Amino acid sequence: MISSKLSHITKTMKSSMIREMVASTRGIEGLISFAGGFPSPKTFPSEIMSKLYAQTLVEDGSSVLQYGASEGDPLFKQELLKWEGYDLDPSEMLITAGSTNAIYYMTRALVDPGDVIICEAPSFLGSLVAFEASGAELVGIPLDNEGIDLNKLQEKVEALQKANRKVKFIYTIPDFHNPAGLTMSLQRRKDLIEYAIAARIPILEDNPYSRLRFSGESLPTLFKLARMEYGNNEVVTEVVSFSKILGPGMRLAFAKGNRVLIERMCSWQQKVNIAPDNVSQRVAARFLAEGYMEPHIQKCCDFYRPYLNAMLNAMAKYLPPYIQYVKPEGGIFTWLRLPEDMNADELFEIAKAHKVTFIPGSKFYPTGQEKFNALRLNFSYSSLEQIEVGLESLGRMMEEFYT
Amino acid sequence: MISSKLSHITKTMKSSMIREMVASTRGIEGLISFAGGFPSPKTFPSEIMSKLYAQTLVEDGSSVLQYGASEGDPLFKQELLKWEGYDLDPSEMLITAGSTNAIYYMTRALVDPGDVIICEAPSFLGSLVAFEASGAELVGIPLDNEGIDLNKLQEKVEALQKANRKVKFIYTIPDFHNPAGLTMSLQRRKDLIEYAIAARIPILEDNPYSRLRFSGESLPTLFKLARMEYGNNEVVTEVVSFSKILGPGMRLAFAKGNRVLIERMCSWQQKVNIAPDNVSQRVAARFLAEGYMEPHIQKCCDFYRPYLNAMLNAMAKYLPPYIQYVKPEGGIFTWLRLPEDMNADELFEIAKAHKVTFIPGSKFYPTGQEKFNALRLNFSYSSLEQIEVGLESLGRMMEEFYT
Repeated sequence: MISSKLSHITKTMKSSMIREMVASTRGIEGLISFAGGFPSPKTFPSEIMSKLYAQTLVEDGSSVLQYGASEGDPLFKQELLKWEGYDLDPSEMLITAGSTNAIYYMTRALVDPGDVIICEAPSFLGSLVAFEASGAELVGIPLDNEGIDLNKLQEKVEALQKANRKVKFIYTIPDFHNPAGLTMSLQRRKDLIEYAIAARIPILEDNPYSRLRFSGESLPTLFKLARMEYGNNEVVTEVVSFSKILGPGMRLAFAKGNRVLIERMCSWQQKVNIAPDNVSQRVAARFLAEGYMEPHIQKCCDFYRPYLNAMLNAMAKYLPPYIQYVKPEGGIFTWLRLPEDMNADELFEIAKAHKVTFIPGSKFYPTGQEKFNALRLNFSYSSLEQIEVGLESLGRMMEEFYT
Repeated sequence: MISSKLSHITKTMKSSMIREMVASTRGIEGLISFAGGFPSPKTFPSEIMSKLYAQTLVEDGSSVLQYGASEGDPLFKQELLKWEGYDLDPSEMLITAGSTNAIYYMTRALVDPGDVIICEAPSFLGSLVAFEASGAELVGIPLDNEGIDLNKLQEKVEALQKANRKVKFIYTIPDFHNPAGLTMSLQRRKDLIEYAIAARIPILEDNPYSRLRFSGESLPTLFKLARMEYGNNEVVTEVVSFSKILGPGMRLAFAKGNRVLIERMCSWQQKVNIAPDNVSQRVAARFLAEGYMEPHIQKCCDFYRPYLNAMLNAMAKYLPPYIQYVKPEGGIFTWLRLPEDMNADELFEIAKAHKVTFIPGSKFYPTGQEKFNALRLNFSYSSLEQIEVGLESLGRMMEEFYT
């Protein structure tokens, strides 16, 4: 009976193909996996959290188990604004159950079926499937070495507008891009903001990784640039996640942006989740208030740095010269560009047989816009030895496969 | 810029009028409020929770802060099945961030804009606004003393089907109904299930209150009846919330139903929240495993019983004879039916001036189907004295207002 009752969008929406690929490698003994996107559980501050959860429940009393405000806990918002150093009104901020949740609300607030969302190609698959489930058409813009290709962006938007299509927003991941490992240059950030202001197209800035910088200088977020250098401009909505810092099990993120948009996103939150979890908000507020955050982030960076370095060394040592790759200074991913005629979906099957796995690049594109000569490597979940052995093996397979 | 970009449904969807009414009484000194729908924070097991949160974080290790399964934590599911005594496959269950969240997923899974959802009239406003935000048309069916009026239901469905409308599901709150205080009779439960099976219309059973029974005999849920007495029939999806037992700040609920439907609801969860909060699931699993649940529910019932009794006594003592009311044996609400020409929205204004507040019945109907001669009283948030004083005052106002 149920199958005949499903909504149109539910019948047609795709599930995460990554999930299925990862499932297909489950149970392979001795598998070296660069496929995941999980942070290392070794970086989670379990002991501090244990103390803070216990304190919160006792000291905040029963109010912490009561319904909270749909827009998020005021105390937590205060701590977040202090942490990030912004002088914003709390009504410009929404707390959500993770960043996918904030991205979903923004999509619901802005997108009618048939509207266009611009994304980077490649981009984060979790967001792409959520966008597609809104009935939006996704238009992917390629990345060059500095970030989203602005000429192609401009060209596409003009063509769409000529065709009377409504472009609702541009989705971008400027820092330690998933999957491309890339960090958008300062100049590109400015150019993108100027373009978006002129073209009157909101930007959705997804920021799960910027605090995980292991070397080099931080760049200002698009949100910060727009607010500080473009007359407090509200074109950017930034979503910051705690999943890669405190652990995704807590489901905590926050969005900052234009007040009207935040208010509408909050209306959706009321309908979807009523309010975010009060307990985890108060615990995270204490984590900030008691000064744990900066030393903890430092510890995370110190933890991940050797893995990134091992990956960079192994790529230099083992990958054939015709493989191009980014050299990230943080995050948890790197991205390999293969020769045009080398298909990473085929390589995936060969690698699986050799007990190495990764995600083929094709999985990170909007439906119908796939490219096949790229792949994503995660370096936050393997041992240093696995990185060495896995890359050696991968390099050898590429040589065999390509010649 | 943003205002011109909002999606059609976002522009047209209504916010909770209850929120605005409650806001309009804020700051009234000495106000006696029967308006809320919050459980009493005095019933929340803060101390046990403090211990369990601390233990979970230490003993479960960092895995508890990692991404969990989108369908919910397997250990928590096991404990839930044991608690409720069902022999279900875990794939027939989905954990969600509160019951509104589960209801939202079911709506997304089944409803296209223009489809029909049948609800009771009156019904829980939070669900009604979520249904309307899906683009569904809501058709309200009146309640009689035993529950949803089956003749009217049948009549309506036939008319809708003749007009080629798709009826996607029937939404009902059989136990301690919000707002109507009513518990559906056993016979009506059976008749409703038989009708739904014959008419091939799924039932969504919302169950936030059934465990809060202070006297009398429990009735089997629709889910249980359909599974046990109608050949394991899958017509019912039941959503059980922990908000009125452990506290809504934790955002925990679970849905049980047909596997295909649960799987599609889970696909929506992946896109909206990725997965439910791992920490609170594990804490609730421990709460069940360590045997805290049944004594705690007993304590909640013992706590609320005097308030219900005070409300029943005060209603008998102070309400004019032409006011009809239900006599609930649990839950947190009672419902007053006023004479046809007595308007509870007008009475609300008068009562506010006399420092007493409640929610007028009209707020609990689908848009355009409002009735005005009813009101909802909550008894979980006032003192025993406030119940006495407030009802006396309300009775007097009714007399003045009506004559």
